[in-house]
Amino acid sequence: MNTLTLALWQCSYPANTFDALAQLDATAAQARAQAAELLVCPEMSLTGYQIGAQRAADLAEPADGPLSQAVAAIAQRHGIAIVYGYPEHNTEGKPYNAAQFIAADGQRLANYRKTHLFGDIDRAQFSPGPQAPAVFEWNGWHLGLLICYDIEFPEPARMLALQGADAVLVPTANMIEFDEVQRVLLPARALENRVFVAYANACGMEGGTTYGGLSLVCGPKGVLLEHAVRDAALVIATLSGDDLRQAHAGSQLAERRGDLYGLLGR
Amino acid sequence: MNTLTLALWQCSYPANTFDALAQLDATAAQARAQAAELLVCPEMSLTGYQIGAQRAADLAEPADGPLSQAVAAIAQRHGIAIVYGYPEHNTEGKPYNAAQFIAADGQRLANYRKTHLFGDIDRAQFSPGPQAPAVFEWNGWHLGLLICYDIEFPEPARMLALQGADAVLVPTANMIEFDEVQRVLLPARALENRVFVAYANACGMEGGTTYGGLSLVCGPKGVLLEHAVRDAALVIATLSGDDLRQAHAGSQLAERRGDLYGLLGR
Repeated sequence: MNTLTLALWQCSYPANTFDALAQLDATAAQARAQAAELLVCPEMSLTGYQIGAQRAADLAEPADGPLSQAVAAIAQRHGIAIVYGYPEHNTEGKPYNAAQFIAADGQRLANYRKTHLFGDIDRAQFSPGPQAPAVFEWNGWHLGLLICYDIEFPEPARMLALQGADAVLVPTANMIEFDEVQRVLLPARALENRVFVAYANACGMEGGTTYGGLSLVCGPKGVLLEHAVRDAALVIATLSGDDLRQAHAGSQLAERRGDLYGLLGR
Repeated sequence: MNTLTLALWQCSYPANTFDALAQLDATAAQARAQAAELLVCPEMSLTGYQIGAQRAADLAEPADGPLSQAVAAIAQRHGIAIVYGYPEHNTEGKPYNAAQFIAADGQRLANYRKTHLFGDIDRAQFSPGPQAPAVFEWNGWHLGLLICYDIEFPEPARMLALQGADAVLVPTANMIEFDEVQRVLLPARALENRVFVAYANACGMEGGTTYGGLSLVCGPKGVLLEHAVRDAALVIATLSGDDLRQAHAGSQLAERRGDLYGLLGR
């Protein structure tokens, strides 16, 4: 693990999945041209987020479905890993709000289902993810995926840190009225866990909702490394393994009192 | 529960407990004159913090010991509740790093023993508290005590919030090189738990250590209400029950996924 250059794609939602894939293809090329090894897209990036229960169900696919194959082809074409969001088919009910990591060779390395549903929007469309987030390894980096509202709770990022995460990647669709997530909560998640936090937000409007942008990368001492403003942007940031090792010298994880925290798991 | 006016006493450590009590008496009068109902002192406020294992043991007393009786007399004399720090006698080993809440009628309402010891300084002098923090009620407010390093971990404040805390009171001795606690972590603790956080820090030098001051009160939306700078100060802040109720409308506690958080308690 040395450095990792990633790109956050802050964008408006596409009109349809065809447009979404075409834009992803162009953006992957652009990100790779700027030396990014990984491109992180917003929540539900291929289909739109507030699409209604019927459309979410109609567009839902298994983790190895046609959209994933199209993304894998884009990843291979440009030689860049991609994190994208999509509705995942669920045989037992409404689809999951999912994010998948596909490596530059087209391999699906991780699939995460949002565990903390946000208000009526999520609950109308999705089932909550049934599993805690899990760390996976890629190019010597230990990574975790969370989606939007998940990162506002201290618990999910903490669980990733306890599994050895170096960075938490967060596709999101955070509305403009909740800027305190980027301003207050993300630096704390990074600092308290000594991890990088990469937060790829939507921008522009979808129905009556305006997304706030401000996509950002925080370093493991809680310092803002790179960020977008309100408009569409491709944020490039290089994560340094040395910064991570330095930050780990001050890690508090070993000093947790897990013996006293039983209340948190009830 | 309507409003609560509190005072944070940001001060240097005293030469001895006699001086400490005299200064506490004067400060309690001053705080009450400014309408404070509660005075919060720094960590180990009556004895000094970095006093060495021998002195910590020599000055340790039970929760109802002579120092507590002197503080109760001060509370009664001025009609103000007091949170103070002291080394608590422990029959099984080194004393605890404790903080006690004494009401204006002299009643001891809560005693908390620091559960997260900070580095060699704490470990040389103290035993870790064996119990999770617990909420207590006072004047219609649900309060919790934490000490210094405890608040840097997301778990202790979260456990207080799950018990219904309205405010977390934190006697502390945070060094000047760790300003990110006040800048990054405290607003997040307040916002993620929808609680007030009142952080009473030491200032000045003790041995070779400089404490950073910046005592502060954060509101339950993560906004800084009042704060000191580096020098000795008495910070007065009024906590509003209305603000708390408004913030609770956005509380995420009911949306936690305790069923998935088992890892945190191991």
